[in-house]
Amino acid sequence: MCESPLIVKTVRDVRECVAKARADGRSVGLVPTMGALHAGHVSLIEASKQDGCYTVVSIYVNPTQFAPTEDLATYPRTLEEDVQKCRAAGVELIFAPDNSEMYPPGDQTRVCPGPLADKLCGAFRPGHFEGVCTVVAKLLQIVQPDTAYFGQKDAQQAVIIRRMVEDLRMPVWIEVCSLVRDADGLALSSRNARLRPEDRARALSLYQALCAGRKLLATGEPSMGRVIAAMRAVIAAHPEVRVDYLSLVDPETLEDVQKPHGRVMIAGAIRVGDVRLIDNMIVDLPVK
Amino acid sequence: MCESPLIVKTVRDVRECVAKARADGRSVGLVPTMGALHAGHVSLIEASKQDGCYTVVSIYVNPTQFAPTEDLATYPRTLEEDVQKCRAAGVELIFAPDNSEMYPPGDQTRVCPGPLADKLCGAFRPGHFEGVCTVVAKLLQIVQPDTAYFGQKDAQQAVIIRRMVEDLRMPVWIEVCSLVRDADGLALSSRNARLRPEDRARALSLYQALCAGRKLLATGEPSMGRVIAAMRAVIAAHPEVRVDYLSLVDPETLEDVQKPHGRVMIAGAIRVGDVRLIDNMIVDLPVK
Repeated sequence: MCESPLIVKTVRDVRECVAKARADGRSVGLVPTMGALHAGHVSLIEASKQDGCYTVVSIYVNPTQFAPTEDLATYPRTLEEDVQKCRAAGVELIFAPDNSEMYPPGDQTRVCPGPLADKLCGAFRPGHFEGVCTVVAKLLQIVQPDTAYFGQKDAQQAVIIRRMVEDLRMPVWIEVCSLVRDADGLALSSRNARLRPEDRARALSLYQALCAGRKLLATGEPSMGRVIAAMRAVIAAHPEVRVDYLSLVDPETLEDVQKPHGRVMIAGAIRVGDVRLIDNMIVDLPVK
Repeated sequence: MCESPLIVKTVRDVRECVAKARADGRSVGLVPTMGALHAGHVSLIEASKQDGCYTVVSIYVNPTQFAPTEDLATYPRTLEEDVQKCRAAGVELIFAPDNSEMYPPGDQTRVCPGPLADKLCGAFRPGHFEGVCTVVAKLLQIVQPDTAYFGQKDAQQAVIIRRMVEDLRMPVWIEVCSLVRDADGLALSSRNARLRPEDRARALSLYQALCAGRKLLATGEPSMGRVIAAMRAVIAAHPEVRVDYLSLVDPETLEDVQKPHGRVMIAGAIRVGDVRLIDNMIVDLPVK
C-alpha cells in the first residue's frame, strides 16, 4: 500500500498513508483541487514537492460550493488524465472521496466566512465561500498537512481561507502560488475547457481589460472610476461577454480602493455563454 | 517550562507543551471549561487522567456564546480556586487565553451548527451553539487532543459537538461524561454559585420535575403530553420559577418523542431570578 501515487477514497486510508509518511519524518503538503488539472494545479504540486513534502492531491468536486443554478453537473471531470498528471509530477497520494465520505449522513455543520465572503465573487455567488470554507476545513482535518497550496487565480478564496485558518487557529500554513496563464494571457482554469472555439477571444478580453487597468494605474491615473471605465470599454468590444464585476481592491481586505497607492488588486469576473471566468492582477504602486 | 500544572496564555505555548508531551509518547486529553470549576468538571479531568492522557484544561469564558442580554458579565470567574482544583486533580496544563488569543484582530469565521442547534436551548439562546462550536473548534485546533471531554449536563452541546466533529472530520474522540449532582439532586453548574439561598429549593424543582417525568414514563404512561404536564405541575409549585422548556426527546436527534420507547432524554431549562439552569436525564424504556 501507499505506492506512488496511490489513489484512496476514504478518510481512514488517507490518514493511514499520511501517518506512514509522518513516521518516515516527512512533512506533508496538500493541494486541494476539483480535478480537471491544468498547469496551474501542477505548479501547486511542484511547490509542494519543492518544499520536500509528501504531497497529497485531493480531487473532489464539492457540491456545497455550487448554487443550484451553477455548473456542478457540467464541471469538467477528467480523473484518468488527472492521475497521469499527478504521477508525472511526483504526487504521493491522491484522495478522491465520494460525497458520502465528505458529507456523512446527517451532515449539517458549516464553516461560515465573514464579510470577506460578501465582496467580489461572493456578491454573485451567495453561499459559494461557505461551501469552500467547509470543504477546505474538512480536507485540512482529514489530511492534517503542514502546508496547503492554493492558487492566486482564486484570489478571494485564498484571502478567505487564510482568514479561516487564522481565525480557527488551524495548525497549517497556507501557501498561495502565482497565477498561471496560457501563452495568450488567458488565466488557466478548468472551466476554460468548456469554452467554445469562438469564445476564446471573448474570454481573453478579461485579461486584456486587467492589462489596460494596470497600464492606466501605472501612468498615475488617480480616478478609480476612469480605470474601471477603461477596463469595461475593453470588454464592451465583445457584446457577448457579460461582466459580473471589475474592481480595484486592497489585496488583503478586499475593500474597494479609493485612491491608488501601495498594493492594488485588479480583479474581474465575466460570463462567456454559460462559462464564468475570473482573473486578477496585483499592481505595486508607489506608497503615498 | 511545562511544569505541572503550568498555566499558559498563548497558542504558541500550548502547542509547545503539547508537542513535548507527544514527544514523550503521551496521548492528550482536553477538558474545555469556562472556569468556575466544580465536581462535574473534576470528573471530566479524572476521566482524562484515567485514560492516561496528558491533561489540558482550558479556562475561557467565551463571549460569542453569550447573547447581549445574557450573563457574560456576571458569569462566575474563580481562576485561583480553579488552578488549585486542577493541581489537586493532576492537570498538566491550563490554557487560560485572553480574548485576543482566541479571536484575533479581524476574526470573522464561525462554525455554524445545523438544525440540531435550533431545538431545546437553541430556541431560547439564538447564536449560542454557533459560539460554542466556534470556540470548541478553535480549542481543538490549538490543543489537537486525542480526546476531548464534555459533560452530559450540557446534553445538547455534547450532541452538537459530536456532530461537528463527525461533519468536519476532526481527528478527535468526544467523550461525554455523566452528569454530576449535589447531594440533594441539583445538577452541578457554575451558575449555581449565583443562586440566592432562597432560590436553592426553587432551582431544585427542575430536578424534581425530571424525576417525576421519569417515574411516570417508567409506569408506562403513553402520553407525552401528560408526562410534560406532570413535570410542569412540579415546577408550578414555585411561582418564581419560569420554564423555558420541558421536553422528551431522542437523545441523538433531539427530536420530540411521539411515543415513548427505547432511549428517551427528559430535558429542561428554567430561570430562577436571572439564573438560567438546565438539567436532563436519560431513561431506557422497553423498545417497542
